Amino acid sequence: MSSPLRLAIAGLGTVGIGVVKIIRQKAALLEARSGRKVQIVAVSARNRDKDRGVSLADYAWEDDPVVMATRDDVDVFVELMGGSDGPAKAATEAALKAGKDVVTANKALLAHHGQELAELAEEKGCVLRFEAAVAGGIPIIKSLTEGLAGNGIDRVMGVMNGTCNYILTRMEATGQGYNALFDEADKLGYLEADPNLDVGGIDAGHKLSLLSSIAFGTQVDFDSVELEGIQRVSIEDIRQAADMGYRIKLLGVARMTGRGLEQSMAPCLVPASSPLGQLEGGTNMVVVEGDQVGQVVLRGAGAGEGPTASAVMGDVMDIARGLRVTTFGQPASTLVKSTPAQAAAPAPYYLRMELMDKPGALAKIATALGEAGLSIHRMRQYDHADNSAPVLIVTHKTTRSALDDALARMATTGVISSEPVALRIEEV
Amino acid sequence: MSSPLRLAIAGLGTVGIGVVKIIRQKAALLEARSGRKVQIVAVSARNRDKDRGVSLADYAWEDDPVVMATRDDVDVFVELMGGSDGPAKAATEAALKAGKDVVTANKALLAHHGQELAELAEEKGCVLRFEAAVAGGIPIIKSLTEGLAGNGIDRVMGVMNGTCNYILTRMEATGQGYNALFDEADKLGYLEADPNLDVGGIDAGHKLSLLSSIAFGTQVDFDSVELEGIQRVSIEDIRQAADMGYRIKLLGVARMTGRGLEQSMAPCLVPASSPLGQLEGGTNMVVVEGDQVGQVVLRGAGAGEGPTASAVMGDVMDIARGLRVTTFGQPASTLVKSTPAQAAAPAPYYLRMELMDKPGALAKIATALGEAGLSIHRMRQYDHADNSAPVLIVTHKTTRSALDDALARMATTGVISSEPVALRIEEV
Repeated sequence: MSSPLRLAIAGLGTVGIGVVKIIRQKAALLEARSGRKVQIVAVSARNRDKDRGVSLADYAWEDDPVVMATRDDVDVFVELMGGSDGPAKAATEAALKAGKDVVTANKALLAHHGQELAELAEEKGCVLRFEAAVAGGIPIIKSLTEGLAGNGIDRVMGVMNGTCNYILTRMEATGQGYNALFDEADKLGYLEADPNLDVGGIDAGHKLSLLSSIAFGTQVDFDSVELEGIQRVSIEDIRQAADMGYRIKLLGVARMTGRGLEQSMAPCLVPASSPLGQLEGGTNMVVVEGDQVGQVVLRGAGAGEGPTASAVMGDVMDIARGLRVTTFGQPASTLVKSTPAQAAAPAPYYLRMELMDKPGALAKIATALGEAGLSIHRMRQYDHADNSAPVLIVTHKTTRSALDDALARMATTGVISSEPVALRIEEV
Repeated sequence: MSSPLRLAIAGLGTVGIGVVKIIRQKAALLEARSGRKVQIVAVSARNRDKDRGVSLADYAWEDDPVVMATRDDVDVFVELMGGSDGPAKAATEAALKAGKDVVTANKALLAHHGQELAELAEEKGCVLRFEAAVAGGIPIIKSLTEGLAGNGIDRVMGVMNGTCNYILTRMEATGQGYNALFDEADKLGYLEADPNLDVGGIDAGHKLSLLSSIAFGTQVDFDSVELEGIQRVSIEDIRQAADMGYRIKLLGVARMTGRGLEQSMAPCLVPASSPLGQLEGGTNMVVVEGDQVGQVVLRGAGAGEGPTASAVMGDVMDIARGLRVTTFGQPASTLVKSTPAQAAAPAPYYLRMELMDKPGALAKIATALGEAGLSIHRMRQYDHADNSAPVLIVTHKTTRSALDDALARMATTGVISSEPVALRIEEV
């Protein structure tokens, strides 16, 4: 019989309490599976007196997570406080320096300090695991790091912010605009304290940068993720994209190209009939394309007490079983600094514009596109009551610079009544 | 620098050659990720002289896999021969007895002898891993055993035979019957040497029995899987099910109920809009429902050189990295013998019948259903040119015994012109 695995949990919000409940209610199951007892020794949170609906009387209380992280009777420090710096970083560093394993759900911490923390962990012979930091309950970190370890990874894609996907799919379902659905998501408590983390794509960008590191053996480089939020996605674009057989998703895409590592988190069109296109509401999805396995799709809840606590427990159970993997799938010292791709890979684009009702207007647009080297795959002009007509164009694959050239040429035609919308179509 | 991990590979068919290619072509990647070289020491197959498109000159050749399995210079025996008994079993046992770790893609072997082999492995301190045995490239064994280890599992479902799903989705797409599409699949080389392994549901049933063991901590019990193949699925049922918003899938379902362990592999209706309903062609999908994580869906290629070799390499890389898990997620000696559920959990059913064109015919059927305690959720009677009319009924949730009672009562009404079709609707 092995000795018990002793945990200290910092942060007793939804996820922390979910972890406490699992460890209390499933003690026998966890012991049967791991061969040892999994115990909580100490807990820490900002407010000791809050009623959290579960008894914490059996555990030592620590006001200072840094102190807790270094207790002699702790094997694993479970960091569920959040925040890229401050107490989360200080306590994680303290735990690793004291030789403790660390399990964290903190994507911001790792997106900004993943490399140094992974190096510290490995120097100390500790593991630093973060399944709960990416796509909630979906075991994507384990699948990518371990299950697909025999693959060169071609591309990783994901819808990894449930709030954004909720807003976008509700816009389509209700016909309401972004602002109304933002307010609805806010009322439902779906938004982070700083909503820009969600709707600005930052939270999802953090997650993408962690997947990139594992997939391509590169140092986490969040600063090079091209970020665009969903704030400018209009109900018109959602409708017109649907009409052309697409859905708009806040989609993360990472791939290694001849021009460097491409990482983008931005609204994209995907085919409505694809698994990504069919993803509704707050559910998350990650798509991994390996050179051996082809396309593997994982789908599940991206947030919430049970799903996120499930992911934390997956890491805890690994440690209990003696399964020890490097943070990003290979020794941190061997991860290379990537060169960010200066331009995204060529892709088809969706263009929407309002064309003035003048003779030859469409010809001027077609000419501008042609001069920029863009060819048109599909085009639709819609009925119009007033003096401007909505026009949709789906281009063949083109570079972003050719597209920008085309947009500049279109602006000089004098036949467009407002700034055109251009969205990348991701082929999935 | 750790010592190299030395493999012996028995079986050089599609999957075996896929593994050889990965190890030859990705040596640097595998070493970077695992921290040690992964090498092939010896290979074995029935025919030494066959041209397999890849050089085997660097490896010792063994005619007898049993001899190869016990070579002193081998760390891991990779069993890719297939077959539930014979050389595959003999060599696996020999390898474990000699203290070698084993990686296998052999679902039949484990479905029939998994318990004794797992006990042998653990007695010898070896690991016996089988990611490639279930759902091809999808890392479902790892996800279920490790990633979701903090969950009580409520239900596992899966479409895990690509050939059957190919036939069923092609029937819907082309309007052709089962026999024509069986022939098409045969011509494309999609069928096992004994096609009943595919279309009879046996292969998929093997896989389900392995998932059940991990999910519920029970000894593998393939003999208790209720098996029904797709041979009797008619184009009429596929059409009518589609008309009611369903698709027919060869669906595996395992759940632990108060009445015991339920395991079935049979044609079922699932909602056309669900991930399972949307699964086309040879792709596989496994759905796991955990009491913490909710529903997690994994989708990917279920067969083929690259995907299956990817799964084999996932296991090999685990061993290279020192990640050692029990075969079924807890010590084999602690797996309990399950009691098979005598009856499936209540479910809605789809019924299709041909009703004779007689006054009061429908009333007689409705009465028979009512007397058996079945209530009707939806009913459709179709136009008819001759003297019998197709009638479709979707019942509310009912037990299989009440359904059987209803079918018996319907048979005595004298208004049905052929035996009714009854298919379970799985709520997903």
